[in-house]
Amino acid sequence: MSTFWSPLVRELDPYVPGEQPKGQNLVKLNTNENPFPPSPRVRQAISDNEILALRLYPDPDSSRLKKTIAEYYQLASDQVFVGNGSDEVLAHSFVAFFKQPQPILFPDVSYSFYPVYANLFGIETKTPALNKDFTIDISAFDQPNGGVILPNPNAPTGIYLSLDDIRSLVEANTESVVIIDEAYIDFGGESAVCLINEYDNLLIVQTLSKSRSLAGLRVGYAMGQVHLIEALDRVKNSFNSYPLDRLAEVAAIAAFEDEAYFVECCNKIMATREWTIEQLTKLGFSILPSKTNFLFAKPSHKGAQSVFNELRAKGIIVRFFKKPGLSDYLRISIGTRDEMTMLIDALTES
Amino acid sequence: MSTFWSPLVRELDPYVPGEQPKGQNLVKLNTNENPFPPSPRVRQAISDNEILALRLYPDPDSSRLKKTIAEYYQLASDQVFVGNGSDEVLAHSFVAFFKQPQPILFPDVSYSFYPVYANLFGIETKTPALNKDFTIDISAFDQPNGGVILPNPNAPTGIYLSLDDIRSLVEANTESVVIIDEAYIDFGGESAVCLINEYDNLLIVQTLSKSRSLAGLRVGYAMGQVHLIEALDRVKNSFNSYPLDRLAEVAAIAAFEDEAYFVECCNKIMATREWTIEQLTKLGFSILPSKTNFLFAKPSHKGAQSVFNELRAKGIIVRFFKKPGLSDYLRISIGTRDEMTMLIDALTES
Repeated sequence: MSTFWSPLVRELDPYVPGEQPKGQNLVKLNTNENPFPPSPRVRQAISDNEILALRLYPDPDSSRLKKTIAEYYQLASDQVFVGNGSDEVLAHSFVAFFKQPQPILFPDVSYSFYPVYANLFGIETKTPALNKDFTIDISAFDQPNGGVILPNPNAPTGIYLSLDDIRSLVEANTESVVIIDEAYIDFGGESAVCLINEYDNLLIVQTLSKSRSLAGLRVGYAMGQVHLIEALDRVKNSFNSYPLDRLAEVAAIAAFEDEAYFVECCNKIMATREWTIEQLTKLGFSILPSKTNFLFAKPSHKGAQSVFNELRAKGIIVRFFKKPGLSDYLRISIGTRDEMTMLIDALTES
Repeated sequence: MSTFWSPLVRELDPYVPGEQPKGQNLVKLNTNENPFPPSPRVRQAISDNEILALRLYPDPDSSRLKKTIAEYYQLASDQVFVGNGSDEVLAHSFVAFFKQPQPILFPDVSYSFYPVYANLFGIETKTPALNKDFTIDISAFDQPNGGVILPNPNAPTGIYLSLDDIRSLVEANTESVVIIDEAYIDFGGESAVCLINEYDNLLIVQTLSKSRSLAGLRVGYAMGQVHLIEALDRVKNSFNSYPLDRLAEVAAIAAFEDEAYFVECCNKIMATREWTIEQLTKLGFSILPSKTNFLFAKPSHKGAQSVFNELRAKGIIVRFFKKPGLSDYLRISIGTRDEMTMLIDALTES
C-alpha cells in the first residue's frame, strides 16, 4: 500500500485467475480451455498483409466482426457489441446497466469476477443462495434490484437453466437489465439469443475463449436490443476506442466462418465429457449434471484438496476452490480423450 | 437514451477517434500512424505454433514482455505494467491514482481522452491554459491537486518539454502522482524514464502504436516505482485478467528486439518531418516546433477547415479540431516522403 494509491484502489479485492503454468508436459485441466487448436482458417486469416497492416489502427467499431456475429445469430449488426474478452464486455456492462441505486443480484455461487466488478464500480450486491442440489433458485431473483446477472450454464457447477427458466427470470425483472453470461452455452445448452427481439431488458454475453478455441486471443461479445448496445458503446468509447486489435478481429471472423470445425470440436468435447462422467462415477465421484466443457465432481474416497494435490504431483492440474460449499469438489476441464484417460489412470492409482 | 442506462452512462461524453476510412487509395495523415510496417521480426514471432497455442489463455501478467521492456529501459520487471493500448493503461491509471478528493490537473490543450476518463470515473479536473505560444506553463501546475497528467511532447501541438521541466513538475507535486504520457517521445525527445528511480510519484506511459508501427496491435505500457505498478495491477486484476492476447505479447517483444529497424524508422520519419516543415514554410504555413511524428500547422492563405476539405477531396486526410484556439491549425501526420510530396503538391495546386 502506498500513499499515492486512490482510496478505491486500497479497497479492491482483485480476481485471481486459474494458474497458467509456464512449464511444459502438464495436463492442464484447470481453466476450461479447449483441447483442440483454433480452426485452420484462423491461421490463414492472420496473413502477411494483415501483419503489415498492423502499423494502422484497427477499425474502432470492429464492424466486420459485428456483422459476422450478427449474421451468425440472425441479428442486426447494431445488436452486437465486441470487446477484449468477455471479461471486458462484462465490466463495461456493469458500468452501463448496474451502476444503480438498488443492489444487483447474482447467485452466491457463480463466476467469481462478478463481486470484483461490483467492488471496482461501487455497486451493491445481493447474492441469493443456490438450492441444496446446486441449481439456481429462480424465485429468489423476483425482488427489487438494479440488475441481474448469472452464468448459464452456471460456473463452477456446470448446471444449465432451460430457456423457459431464462424467460421467467427476464419477465420477473422488466425494470432492470438481465445479463445471461453464456460462456459455456455451446456445449449442449440452448442460447437465449433467440429471445433478444422479444425482451428489451435482456443482454447475452458470449466468448470465443471456450467453444471456439481462442482463449489466447481475447474476444468476447454481447448481444441485445440496440438501446443496450448503445450504452455499452458509450462506456467503451469513454475507456478505450480500440479494444480489439486487427489480428483478433480477422481471427475471430475466421473462427465463426468455420462452422463444421466448431461443431466437430464441440461434439468431441461433449462425447469425452460423457465418457469421463462414466469413468469418474465408477471411481465413486459424485458429479453435478454438466452442459459445459468441465465437470464439478466430488471424490468419495478422500477430500477434494488431497486429490487436487495428488493430481498436481502427477502433472495434472485441475481447479480447487477453497470456499465454503465448494471445497468438497474439484472443477475438471474436459481435455482430449487421451488427457482424460491420463486423469482417470492417475485417480485409479491413488 | 433508454430507461435501462445507468445514470452515469447518460452523462458520458465519449471520445471520438480520428477517422479510419475503409476505402483504399487514401493518403492517411490523420491519426499519427507510422508509415512503415512493423519490424519483419513481428512476422516471424507470429508463428504457426503461437497460433495453435491460441486455444490457451495468455500469461495474465505478460511477464516475458514486461521483462523485455524492463531490460530495454534498464528497470526491474516489477517496474513495468502493460495493457491493451496506452489508452487502457491511462484509464487504469486514472482509477489507481486520480480518484482523489482534489481535482487533477492537465493542460487545457492536450490529449482529448483525459477529460473523458475523468468524466467516466467521476474525477474533478482543472485545466491550466497553455502560454500564448502553445507551450505548457509549468508554473500553473504548482497548486494543490489530486494528480497531474500531460503528454510530452504535447498533443496536438507537438511541443516538447525538457527533462529539466519534467523534473520541476515532479518536484512541485510530491504529494500526488505525475503521469507523463510519452506516446511520441521517440521522435526526438528524451524520455523521463531515467528519473523513475529518483521520484516515487512519477509514472511514464508509452505505446507501441507510433514509433514501433503497431497501432493495430494495441499494446501500451507504464513504468514507475513498484508501489505505483502494484496499484495498476490491482485495478487491472479487478477489470480484466488477460488484457494482452498471446500474439500481441510475442509481437511486442519482437518489436523491442529489433532496435536497428526501430532507429531507422524513427530517423526516416524525423528527416521527412524536417523536409515537410521546410516545404510547408515555403507555402506560408506557420508550424509549431515538433518533436513528434506530426506537425501542427496553420495555413496563411485560407482557413484550416477549407484546407482540410480541399485535401479530403483530393484523397488526403489530415486532422482538423473544431475547437477554440485549435481551429486555425491542421494536425498533419508524417507519412513517407512520397506521401508528404503528394501533400505538398496538393497544397501547391490549391
